[in-house]
Amino acid sequence: MAEPVRPSEDALIARWFRPLATDPASFRLGDDCASLTPPPGADLVLKTDAVAAGIHFFADDPWDAVAAKALRVNLSDLAAKGARPLGYLLSLALPSDWRVEQMEAFAAGLGADQARFGVALWGGDTIRSPDGLVISITAIGAVPQGRMVRRGGARPGDRLYVSGTLGDAALGLMLRLDPDRAAAWGLTADERDHLLARYLLPEPRVALAPAILAHAGGAMDLSDGLVIDAGRMGRSSGVSIRIDAEAVPLSPAARRALNRAPELLRSILAGGDDYEILAAVPPEAATAFEHAAAAGAVAVTAIGNVGTPPTGSQDAGACGAVQEAETVTIVGLDDRPISIGAEGYRHF
Amino acid sequence: MAEPVRPSEDALIARWFRPLATDPASFRLGDDCASLTPPPGADLVLKTDAVAAGIHFFADDPWDAVAAKALRVNLSDLAAKGARPLGYLLSLALPSDWRVEQMEAFAAGLGADQARFGVALWGGDTIRSPDGLVISITAIGAVPQGRMVRRGGARPGDRLYVSGTLGDAALGLMLRLDPDRAAAWGLTADERDHLLARYLLPEPRVALAPAILAHAGGAMDLSDGLVIDAGRMGRSSGVSIRIDAEAVPLSPAARRALNRAPELLRSILAGGDDYEILAAVPPEAATAFEHAAAAGAVAVTAIGNVGTPPTGSQDAGACGAVQEAETVTIVGLDDRPISIGAEGYRHF
Repeated sequence: MAEPVRPSEDALIARWFRPLATDPASFRLGDDCASLTPPPGADLVLKTDAVAAGIHFFADDPWDAVAAKALRVNLSDLAAKGARPLGYLLSLALPSDWRVEQMEAFAAGLGADQARFGVALWGGDTIRSPDGLVISITAIGAVPQGRMVRRGGARPGDRLYVSGTLGDAALGLMLRLDPDRAAAWGLTADERDHLLARYLLPEPRVALAPAILAHAGGAMDLSDGLVIDAGRMGRSSGVSIRIDAEAVPLSPAARRALNRAPELLRSILAGGDDYEILAAVPPEAATAFEHAAAAGAVAVTAIGNVGTPPTGSQDAGACGAVQEAETVTIVGLDDRPISIGAEGYRHF
Repeated sequence: MAEPVRPSEDALIARWFRPLATDPASFRLGDDCASLTPPPGADLVLKTDAVAAGIHFFADDPWDAVAAKALRVNLSDLAAKGARPLGYLLSLALPSDWRVEQMEAFAAGLGADQARFGVALWGGDTIRSPDGLVISITAIGAVPQGRMVRRGGARPGDRLYVSGTLGDAALGLMLRLDPDRAAAWGLTADERDHLLARYLLPEPRVALAPAILAHAGGAMDLSDGLVIDAGRMGRSSGVSIRIDAEAVPLSPAARRALNRAPELLRSILAGGDDYEILAAVPPEAATAFEHAAAAGAVAVTAIGNVGTPPTGSQDAGACGAVQEAETVTIVGLDDRPISIGAEGYRHF
């Protein structure tokens, strides 16, 4: 079933992956497994997330960005749990027509992010893909024992914060699918490029992890859209969540597009791929949280509040639109609920 | 890019994966990450391996076997490192035409192996596959600190052991590709089924891990064939390896096929998917190793010896056929070298 392919997997490892294996845990990829001595007193926080051509990125996206995206969507999760990233394992399904310059870019993309975020490649596996590129990464971080910040830790009275700006990636994807929208939305070239870049490559808020760990009661990263992910936080925590639409932080590009096309509010609040952090912070910790976020140079914005459980709600395992609508309320300028639809964005 | 699919990923998790998340580390899959408190005094041993339809298994293989195979190829690596398995993360790329009964089988296959091998699902990610089923698993085990058994720990004078029998899976794959071979090889129906089953589903030697940990200087699992993998062990260890072809343990089915078709020796020694363990054991520990293996009810057979480094060899990162031929010598009945060809089996 496997016809010979050159270069071999061993050659691929030697040329592109061994230089990334800078941590002793990896044995320079010279063994079949990695061996990690856990930091004393730490719990390990583990996450696996995959991205695939044609689903999470476009088949013609540059491979440095694709590799970095695969890593960053995992680092984003670790940051939202308050964890310091340590290392990762890479499972790569390569299409048979891969080119050397693509692998060069792939390794360069990972290398740059390793340096920036302080992680190293611990191990991996490379197989031929039945079709397009599929990258699955398992990232591992550390928190003090028992301290991982849970999705289900939001409590009535907490303030709800998000990092960065929301909706950029969703709008960037819309622009990617229909470039004419840039003109329709009245965007400058810079604004268009900003939105496209935010879809291509998320910015994991690794620098926010210490603030989350110290001050947030509950937190998660936003990958499927604010509406659906806030619903998950609400149900896990057994609370209701009220979001002030006007308070949701927008980039200048998203603001201009929304002004021109108010119906984009739905894409901004329910679109996916934000990879920002949603955090519930007790009011007495809010100032300290804001200061800690500023110390990490990550912008955070209060967008709402956590309330008592919605009447008749339950922590259902499978999420339905009705339950989400009950858990999350979006209010507009006049304090009246806005109907966004609760579909959110599903990668699956 | 992502059109709605039902059931949602949340529903998929609730129905099929949450029941597998029996370890507190997984929070019943109710969070974005798992949180593991490492066993005191332990190093974690980490491995990621992927299997894909059309490459590592046939698209029409039953999903319980496919799921178990994906888990077992990782457990096999942990066992070869002397590690006790703890848990795993699952990254699943599902073709869009998956059926409920397939997912039922998939979960049942994992559930049975979890019970048998003492592991639990810690987390995962499910995406749509661009084409066929791709399963990437990251398995994590534990060894006492600093004690992971390395591939590079073989020393001149060590005895070389393998577990189980070799070549069954390679012959099973040949039968799968051409069922008429069963008659040509003179196999009984039971013998044919044995070889087919050994290809479909490997038997990870988890029960051998304590013996490996206690007595082996170097070890690895055999996934790409004895010749190529022994070459890797030899080069990593800076030693030569001599294998007595007559000593290589064969199942009755493989023995019968080999008697009828002596040219199968190459497939048996260089074919892949054995998932048996190759271990280098110092002679003074050999008896204790054999007893410990027997205590785990795993058959082990001495098949050769470790010698001084081959003249002019080096531990090259990329393996070439010439270097492998120099590192590994296969000898036959008359003690003369047999040329097997050093290609081995490459999954990639």
